Amino acid sequence: MTSPTTEPRARGAEPGVRGGMIGVRDGLATLGPDALALRTALDMRFETWGHRAGAHSVAYPPLLAVDDLAGVDYFANFPHLGLLASGLAPEAVEAGYPGEGPLDAVPAGRLGPARHVLPPAACYSAYFDLAGERLDGPQRITTIASCFRREPHLDGLRRLYGFSMREIVCVGGHDDVVDHLARLKHVVLEFAAELGLPLTVETAGDPFFDPDGARAVSQRLFPVKEEFVFDGTPAVASVNFHRNFFGERCDIRAADGEPAYTGCVAFGLERWISALGDHFGLDPAELTERIVDVP
Amino acid sequence: MTSPTTEPRARGAEPGVRGGMIGVRDGLATLGPDALALRTALDMRFETWGHRAGAHSVAYPPLLAVDDLAGVDYFANFPHLGLLASGLAPEAVEAGYPGEGPLDAVPAGRLGPARHVLPPAACYSAYFDLAGERLDGPQRITTIASCFRREPHLDGLRRLYGFSMREIVCVGGHDDVVDHLARLKHVVLEFAAELGLPLTVETAGDPFFDPDGARAVSQRLFPVKEEFVFDGTPAVASVNFHRNFFGERCDIRAADGEPAYTGCVAFGLERWISALGDHFGLDPAELTERIVDVP
Repeated sequence: MTSPTTEPRARGAEPGVRGGMIGVRDGLATLGPDALALRTALDMRFETWGHRAGAHSVAYPPLLAVDDLAGVDYFANFPHLGLLASGLAPEAVEAGYPGEGPLDAVPAGRLGPARHVLPPAACYSAYFDLAGERLDGPQRITTIASCFRREPHLDGLRRLYGFSMREIVCVGGHDDVVDHLARLKHVVLEFAAELGLPLTVETAGDPFFDPDGARAVSQRLFPVKEEFVFDGTPAVASVNFHRNFFGERCDIRAADGEPAYTGCVAFGLERWISALGDHFGLDPAELTERIVDVP
Repeated sequence: MTSPTTEPRARGAEPGVRGGMIGVRDGLATLGPDALALRTALDMRFETWGHRAGAHSVAYPPLLAVDDLAGVDYFANFPHLGLLASGLAPEAVEAGYPGEGPLDAVPAGRLGPARHVLPPAACYSAYFDLAGERLDGPQRITTIASCFRREPHLDGLRRLYGFSMREIVCVGGHDDVVDHLARLKHVVLEFAAELGLPLTVETAGDPFFDPDGARAVSQRLFPVKEEFVFDGTPAVASVNFHRNFFGERCDIRAADGEPAYTGCVAFGLERWISALGDHFGLDPAELTERIVDVP
């Protein structure tokens, strides 16, 4: 029952369930009733923005196939970040491993091959699901996923090992995607202003979509990634323009017959909880009221 | 972009997002907007039962620690079912593995040790979270989790590799738990009757909590596991009485100072979608209306 604790759990004096409880251990968060309600209120707000932008809500599988993710160079770009899923090797099971008794970790030698990956972001699934499609017009999708990254430095709710990401995705022609991103960027900034949460917009490169600089011209024409940053902490949201990278790799054709363009707006729900708590100094129940009150 | 397909995806003729879409591939489900809305409606109904029974909603981490799960003999009892999470070994990353190009699976030799497990059920986290606690009275908790089991035989939405489980848990004295389970069993049966979904209640042993038959007497006094079964398919819900197994293993003390008793009612959300679709022959949007209409 003992695990290395990277951060003391933020618990009250009383045992059991506490309303505002937020505990983080080993980069994994436990949210008590009020903190969970805040996360749900934030997510409902972001999902509604998706619906207003014409997106449909879809639930994708909680695991991705290794071959799908390899097909978009994920492992080549982020070999250290991916979290893979595998079972005990059949030989280990037959040999009676691990039996009873304490066990801190299963050594690689006892594992079978990993065919699945825990999602590093919510939007990949949308491109894999649309692979091979010939679209009549732009497809807009919103989805939420538990996402995982083996970040070398964890930092409370701001940088978790496992976290919740809501995305609003557009797959279509170049202008469809650029328009989708511009509109939602405006919505995010308007909401933050109304709420009184100071966010700065920072332009970031993304090595994933520009590994060799070959696309540097189009990156200057339209920033690849813009981040919404609170007080210098990791971005609470980002606007991502992938050009036709996923359209090409996943063979998705837009209405004009060309490889589709894709883009997404992504929200890190636990980072919003952290930023709101830090900025307003209120408990989760009070923050939920604030969120709900914004028109 | 190609994965072994165990079941054709149930897709319409049109590309893109379709309302009632339910696709299952490799034991993993994709739910289109209407099917997702049905899952949400079911989950809200079950969560509300939890609240009425005095439970608080808590979100637990999306991964469990290997040592926690080993501490309740999970691997000793179900070595073949667990899905473990690990990254690429540092040596593999340093050596430039896997680089670009197709990749169907990562061999065990390239993996690092696994310290986390994908949850096989939603309720374990509640016991691990309460480890070492001295309770003033019964704790009732409801939580939902993406759960994973390496089932040898997958079967559409009825038996998935990854699925959604809502649980309503009680941790306290013997009578608290027995009462919690009896009340919720009644609620489930009343709902199914009102809805017109024929469910049978089947008593099942659970080898997990009775590996050596030593507890056979108490199992006769109170069934360890009762399953709600639709038309001979895998149970859509179950009532589970663990006696004081988790209380002992996780050192949770009830108000009387003795190891706490625990029990849970569990709902497999995708199995409900499957059973409702099979029984009523309606599409997901129509089924959601049925669910919402039940008082």
